[in-house]
Amino acid sequence: MRVAIVGATGAVGTELLQLLEERRFPLTTLTLYASTRSAGRSLVFRGRPLVVQALPDDGNLHADVVFSSAGGSLSLAHARNWASHGAVVVDNTSAWRMDDSVPLVVPEANGEAALSHRGIVANPNCSTIIALMALAPLHKAFGLKRATVATYQAVSGAGAAGIEELHEQTRAALDGRDLLPSKFKHRIAFNIFSHDSDIGADGYNVEERKLLLESRKILGLPNLALSATCVRVPVFRAHSEAIHAEFERAVEVAEARAVLESATGVRMVDDRDGNVFPMPLDASGKDDVLVGRLRADSSYEGGIAMFLAGDQIRKGAALNAVQIAELLVRQGAAGVPA
Amino acid sequence: MRVAIVGATGAVGTELLQLLEERRFPLTTLTLYASTRSAGRSLVFRGRPLVVQALPDDGNLHADVVFSSAGGSLSLAHARNWASHGAVVVDNTSAWRMDDSVPLVVPEANGEAALSHRGIVANPNCSTIIALMALAPLHKAFGLKRATVATYQAVSGAGAAGIEELHEQTRAALDGRDLLPSKFKHRIAFNIFSHDSDIGADGYNVEERKLLLESRKILGLPNLALSATCVRVPVFRAHSEAIHAEFERAVEVAEARAVLESATGVRMVDDRDGNVFPMPLDASGKDDVLVGRLRADSSYEGGIAMFLAGDQIRKGAALNAVQIAELLVRQGAAGVPA
Repeated sequence: MRVAIVGATGAVGTELLQLLEERRFPLTTLTLYASTRSAGRSLVFRGRPLVVQALPDDGNLHADVVFSSAGGSLSLAHARNWASHGAVVVDNTSAWRMDDSVPLVVPEANGEAALSHRGIVANPNCSTIIALMALAPLHKAFGLKRATVATYQAVSGAGAAGIEELHEQTRAALDGRDLLPSKFKHRIAFNIFSHDSDIGADGYNVEERKLLLESRKILGLPNLALSATCVRVPVFRAHSEAIHAEFERAVEVAEARAVLESATGVRMVDDRDGNVFPMPLDASGKDDVLVGRLRADSSYEGGIAMFLAGDQIRKGAALNAVQIAELLVRQGAAGVPA
Repeated sequence: MRVAIVGATGAVGTELLQLLEERRFPLTTLTLYASTRSAGRSLVFRGRPLVVQALPDDGNLHADVVFSSAGGSLSLAHARNWASHGAVVVDNTSAWRMDDSVPLVVPEANGEAALSHRGIVANPNCSTIIALMALAPLHKAFGLKRATVATYQAVSGAGAAGIEELHEQTRAALDGRDLLPSKFKHRIAFNIFSHDSDIGADGYNVEERKLLLESRKILGLPNLALSATCVRVPVFRAHSEAIHAEFERAVEVAEARAVLESATGVRMVDDRDGNVFPMPLDASGKDDVLVGRLRADSSYEGGIAMFLAGDQIRKGAALNAVQIAELLVRQGAAGVPA
């Protein structure tokens, strides 16, 4: 399996590289692409340096699987061309997610959808993936009817520049200096702010709309009722989410717990006596999404409330993409047959 | 009006002192009390030093109004005795809030309840006050039926020690050192955690239960459906809250906006084009609770979603207490008649 990463030097790109090594992805060649600015740099894979290339003009990336995480406009312009040379593009941007001809996949939720791809499989937005790791198995068991979500999102969602800004701005604040925002619109050090994506006429921002529309597509529930409030918090790389969910029938906490305990990719962290619940610090660098604070919604008979934390760069982005590729390889839906 | 502050050297106590000065509270004497450990220290009021006293054994605080913020157990043991010497105790602890004989008051929501006091008026918990600054006027207009709340709570809720811990632990983290939690159970620097108060059999913690039970009492809605998820975030002194609310009838956003725009103590910060919404940094040191992200709940026809930020030490504690005292003085319900 010949593999390429487009956007290899970014936060998600470097995580992809690490995951392909960690998980012993069955590859024969690995080619790294990035902008002409980053081309020529070296990244280490399996102990050896790999030189980052500029993208070729003809769109032939010499790959069976292309991981694309270099921005939506690049992906929108080129993914079909990359695919036309025989690759399956696993796209980590927002470019293709809502395209009817492109499957949008969380392997644990709707892995089978990936198999019907026509050259592109879309990787969902980070907060969608993390929410669905808990909501999808609950939906399969009980039928999801409505969810409200409040997020606590790490700065890594804005890439390496977001991480850098939290670091530098916090140091400045502690030293009594005021470092003005650059990557974000508002100060992030010792502050939180409503996700600074554009707001639509309905008052929801783009991040919140992704959670709604992507969840509907992945779960196959075109009328799912969902409302999200997306908020950035001064945390480096894991997102947390407070969720209230309602189902087709009243659900007991014990039933929900049984479903989540047996769900792949979920780890229950729900120690009421010890007051130990999901925290972004504990989720960082981990593959599993942590789920806890599981309780009967005190405001809705038969509803469930819970709190999640998941690594935004791993399961929220790179890991989910690699899992999609693994699934395609396993099912013979990527690469030229031998 | 003779005034006393019990717990004068704490985070709320020093804010009370500042507010009494700022707001020209009509006082003739001001006596500051604290633990024997802090007695003898001086605090400045109206430009002059005031020496902090130890509490007298006989419970006579020589005051018409006593602000109590030195902990629930002290208040539970002594407030009735303080009141028996002619004082009205405005109690900022959790000791008396759910006592049927004690009014629990947010002046903008149920100020009239304070007038029926029998020596003690309870000041609600910070997250309750901030939520009700928006929910109470909406309830009066439309009849509140259900609310879900996710909080983003500052460390000031744990007092001066919480503020110090965020400061020192963040500096350590930036320097690559790991400063273990002391005031909090979990690390707060670049992390968030479920509010570390005790969890009940229903899975809700004490902070969340306060939001439910205090809201019911203040709004006079014994069956109000409310579910909260309370979370601590690395912010110094203002709490934020994401709220979904449902009413007796379907509510239009424009109607809700009109109600909130004319609500006392509320400032709308809801600039969708500029992406400017309530932030704890902007709420800090301010009297008003900031309300924004006002929108029609995309998951419930006629429901309203919004986002608030309010200073935890001011409106969430000291300011609300001073406003209760001002109301009592104005209505002749405190002090010995001339």
